[in-house]
Amino acid sequence: MGSDHTVPPRFEPPRRLLLAPGPSAVNPRVLEAMARPMIGHLDPETMRMLHEIQSMLRDVFRTGNELTFPVSGTGTAGMECALTNVLEPGDVALALVSGAFAERMKEIALRCRAEVHVVGGQWGNPVPEEAVADALATHPTAKAVLAVHAETSTGLRQPLEGIGRLCRERGTLFVVDAVASLGGIPVEVDGWGIDVCYSGSQKCLSVPPGLAPITFSPRAVAARIERGDRPMNSFYLDVLPISRYLGTERLYHHTAPVSMLYGLHEGLRIVLEEGLEARWRRHEEIGAEVLAALEERGFEPFPPSGYRLPEVICVRLPEGVDDRVARKRLLDEFGIEIAGGLGELAGKVWRVGLMGESCTRDSAKALLDAIDLVLAA
Amino acid sequence: MGSDHTVPPRFEPPRRLLLAPGPSAVNPRVLEAMARPMIGHLDPETMRMLHEIQSMLRDVFRTGNELTFPVSGTGTAGMECALTNVLEPGDVALALVSGAFAERMKEIALRCRAEVHVVGGQWGNPVPEEAVADALATHPTAKAVLAVHAETSTGLRQPLEGIGRLCRERGTLFVVDAVASLGGIPVEVDGWGIDVCYSGSQKCLSVPPGLAPITFSPRAVAARIERGDRPMNSFYLDVLPISRYLGTERLYHHTAPVSMLYGLHEGLRIVLEEGLEARWRRHEEIGAEVLAALEERGFEPFPPSGYRLPEVICVRLPEGVDDRVARKRLLDEFGIEIAGGLGELAGKVWRVGLMGESCTRDSAKALLDAIDLVLAA
Repeated sequence: MGSDHTVPPRFEPPRRLLLAPGPSAVNPRVLEAMARPMIGHLDPETMRMLHEIQSMLRDVFRTGNELTFPVSGTGTAGMECALTNVLEPGDVALALVSGAFAERMKEIALRCRAEVHVVGGQWGNPVPEEAVADALATHPTAKAVLAVHAETSTGLRQPLEGIGRLCRERGTLFVVDAVASLGGIPVEVDGWGIDVCYSGSQKCLSVPPGLAPITFSPRAVAARIERGDRPMNSFYLDVLPISRYLGTERLYHHTAPVSMLYGLHEGLRIVLEEGLEARWRRHEEIGAEVLAALEERGFEPFPPSGYRLPEVICVRLPEGVDDRVARKRLLDEFGIEIAGGLGELAGKVWRVGLMGESCTRDSAKALLDAIDLVLAA
Repeated sequence: MGSDHTVPPRFEPPRRLLLAPGPSAVNPRVLEAMARPMIGHLDPETMRMLHEIQSMLRDVFRTGNELTFPVSGTGTAGMECALTNVLEPGDVALALVSGAFAERMKEIALRCRAEVHVVGGQWGNPVPEEAVADALATHPTAKAVLAVHAETSTGLRQPLEGIGRLCRERGTLFVVDAVASLGGIPVEVDGWGIDVCYSGSQKCLSVPPGLAPITFSPRAVAARIERGDRPMNSFYLDVLPISRYLGTERLYHHTAPVSMLYGLHEGLRIVLEEGLEARWRRHEEIGAEVLAALEERGFEPFPPSGYRLPEVICVRLPEGVDDRVARKRLLDEFGIEIAGGLGELAGKVWRVGLMGESCTRDSAKALLDAIDLVLAA
């Protein structure tokens, strides 16, 4: 029963340089915002803040979509929100697979009882437009194409514009995971014909983890409305009641995570103050510098040239480097967090995140200096 | 496209006295914790904090259940986590209905494609033990009984101990919503034979909204494990991969909302420093005082005597009081938030929350004084 009620001491987080693919460092302005006094989820001022967040998210997603909001959960909740609202039992979905997060999209689509066909399937390799065209020809009734823009598990940047065009020609919904790209590299929801696009607060937006910005095109909303009362997996993530909460009715659906919204509001202000183009340039430049420096040190980029993310660098380890030992030393001796490989890549690659507030030349230098010391000894 | 990138000013929340049934006021110690610097969700120190949270939650839930953790979402995510892990398509569930949140449990059970039978059904009236015994006799294969302990929509306190006994005799899983009771009035997970119990961070625990503490008995875990790979609705809320993240494997499932965990850790320390028994007494006493004062002013308690929650008081409005006008005046002139009725009770009742940090004699006095002024004019 644990009835002795032992109270642990106050938790003091250690100082870390966060260079894994999320969470990234959080600006002190955002941390300060997180500590603001609580107000109610139906307070008129909360609604005003939420509407400002929606408007800023539209700017960041580059969309005019009315239904644009932060899901009350992490990026995986965003993924589940996207798929559960789009896919009905028996729907055909084409999953473009090139890493662990695409596999996760496939897994969740299967839980929606969709009929899922994999296109591509090789971790670290982009899915070519022609393969998608072929798959759409083979499955002309496909309801949705699912793609990961920035595959955090492999550092792969999947081109989207041509696939968006194919989806529009076919009337197929295009669902895109932009968890590790939004706010770091260009994401053009309207320009690329994306119907549902979701992200996470804790990557290039540099807000604490716990919210998943998402946007639905009018076509995607129409598909959800057409579905009506036919059952869908989730109530928590159902965009119909959520849009009634966001709208003028202010109808209670669930208690919005107010403190997280404070943080997102301030974080989006910082993103827009910097400007998206300047922010993209910063990520592109610093990412290229760090990759070049890692190549000099014997690390080999995992994805092919032309398809490498600047903000999540995935490199094969040089001969003789013990993944666990070296990463433990980086953390214990230098307070630097980077990530190892997921699934089949465990022990073989490192993943370095240079996202949002973590994407600075100072952070990059600290990492490279620490790697030099760890690999030398 | 909104490409002008208008950046709204910094958001300054207004000062509010939070006396709706959530969110409740947050202690400055918890607010300070929310602003701590970010660390990674797989950091050994994050795991240590999470294990301390699990241990404190076991104390608060009064359980020895190993699988006890905060769901990364609000109370409704906790509800969905409970039901999606317990109910498979075709399973029979008995839903004890006495208000809006019980209706929501039923709705989510239906989305799990369970066969749901309602017991009770009258808002504001407790479901008698005999009715549950009868329903269990009529549906001997029932997999689960679903009940709301503290029905936020009606202020009803549902007795649970006898129903827990019936469930144990039958081998039926007992799923309990303790969103508005945990940390405010007694909740005895092991003592009452509850198999799955979930709550919300923002009620009597007085932590910002965004986490849903939950606990699963070994019987409930066994039911999930027995289910194996048979599909379930949610991946995000699937306790099998979540327990692998919480365990020694530290296997990534989703990015834990680290700042929210900082807040919950500090909030649970405050709960245990006060002591559960002292905390229950505080809620019981102040709730009784406020209800008596409201009765003196012509408000009538909605649930029958003996079944009234002290921390969520639901009262019918006196003749001639306009719900919307009076609540707007409380908010605009006094900064006090209380809640109106949900669903069929809209315009007819007020709901006053006296939970956690909001449950003080000072807050109660401020509310009663403001009500006197509003009702007089």
